[in-house]
Amino acid sequence: MIYENTDKPLYLASASPRRQELLKNIGISFRVIVPAGEDITFPFKSPRYYAEKKAEIKMQETLRSNPIDDGCIITADTIVERKNRILEKPRSVEDAVRLLKMLEGKWHTVFTAYCISMNRQKEVLKSISSQVKFKQLTMREIKNYVATGEPMDKAGAYAIQGYGLFMIEEIKGSYTNIVGLPLTHVINDLLKLKVIQVRK
Amino acid sequence: MIYENTDKPLYLASASPRRQELLKNIGISFRVIVPAGEDITFPFKSPRYYAEKKAEIKMQETLRSNPIDDGCIITADTIVERKNRILEKPRSVEDAVRLLKMLEGKWHTVFTAYCISMNRQKEVLKSISSQVKFKQLTMREIKNYVATGEPMDKAGAYAIQGYGLFMIEEIKGSYTNIVGLPLTHVINDLLKLKVIQVRK
Repeated sequence: MIYENTDKPLYLASASPRRQELLKNIGISFRVIVPAGEDITFPFKSPRYYAEKKAEIKMQETLRSNPIDDGCIITADTIVERKNRILEKPRSVEDAVRLLKMLEGKWHTVFTAYCISMNRQKEVLKSISSQVKFKQLTMREIKNYVATGEPMDKAGAYAIQGYGLFMIEEIKGSYTNIVGLPLTHVINDLLKLKVIQVRK
Repeated sequence: MIYENTDKPLYLASASPRRQELLKNIGISFRVIVPAGEDITFPFKSPRYYAEKKAEIKMQETLRSNPIDDGCIITADTIVERKNRILEKPRSVEDAVRLLKMLEGKWHTVFTAYCISMNRQKEVLKSISSQVKFKQLTMREIKNYVATGEPMDKAGAYAIQGYGLFMIEEIKGSYTNIVGLPLTHVINDLLKLKVIQVRK
């Protein structure tokens, strides 16, 4: 393994198995806690601001509902944006088809914002953007993809690390950011905060 | 599944489990055959030319050593290039460390060339390039990564879809091309050759 934990407890406030996998894969251990504040809505100026605010609200609400006094907590929020519109998780199969129709053959942006707290103090709030280009899709390709079930709980109705890979022509930026957590950025922050270290 | 085979037999002449996985993942079935011509060397003008020539030689040698008369065969070759030098698979642990030192903190290029034959006739020979940026690495991070064993059979001494992900800051271009097979391009060619079809 590449990294290891120090003596500071680490909590990942995210139910996403993809985010958990990214950290586990390189030797980082953590306890998963249920993030609060998922359903809080608010007005926003830009997609990037929305993602950051969302990650921050999740942190505030998670701290409020968890009596964790010391250690590090990570919250994150990933959104898909096209033409200044945010594409949420699909509400139905028809909605997933509609979202994928919007994305096919074109570039869009994925923002992942993450917030890190240490001992209940916010230490990091940042967001990373990546560009993704989908290939052109026939309606049958879209329907076959939706039929896999994969789009249903994903922002923008796709997962780059799953079956969705067949649509991804090109990307620009961090790959793990599109998966849901910009790994090199998060590692750097956790190293700085001495929550992890390079394995000795 | 997104695609399905037609009645034309498909053979993948590659021992790479990563390439096999990419095709299987979206519903494509094939028989794996051992590629011939892996160790043939020749002078070359450019990294891209080298990869294409290599994929072509693998096809010629694979056809020569296999009595496959009808159906489709795919061969592929992936190389890592930096400053017009080709980074091969490492010959030793020390060599892997040396290669990763060359790549850390910088951009490099990955070329995957692939060749497709139908009924012993070459139909496609092309190559796709992607850019990859590694984060800066300490010697201990490099040694920990080499200790996973992952770099040893990989061109450029890393795998983007494995532990190697912790080093990948950014990419530009096809992600699957870096894994070892530019999926959207190969799908398009196999659709055109009617070796696969969108699942009905």
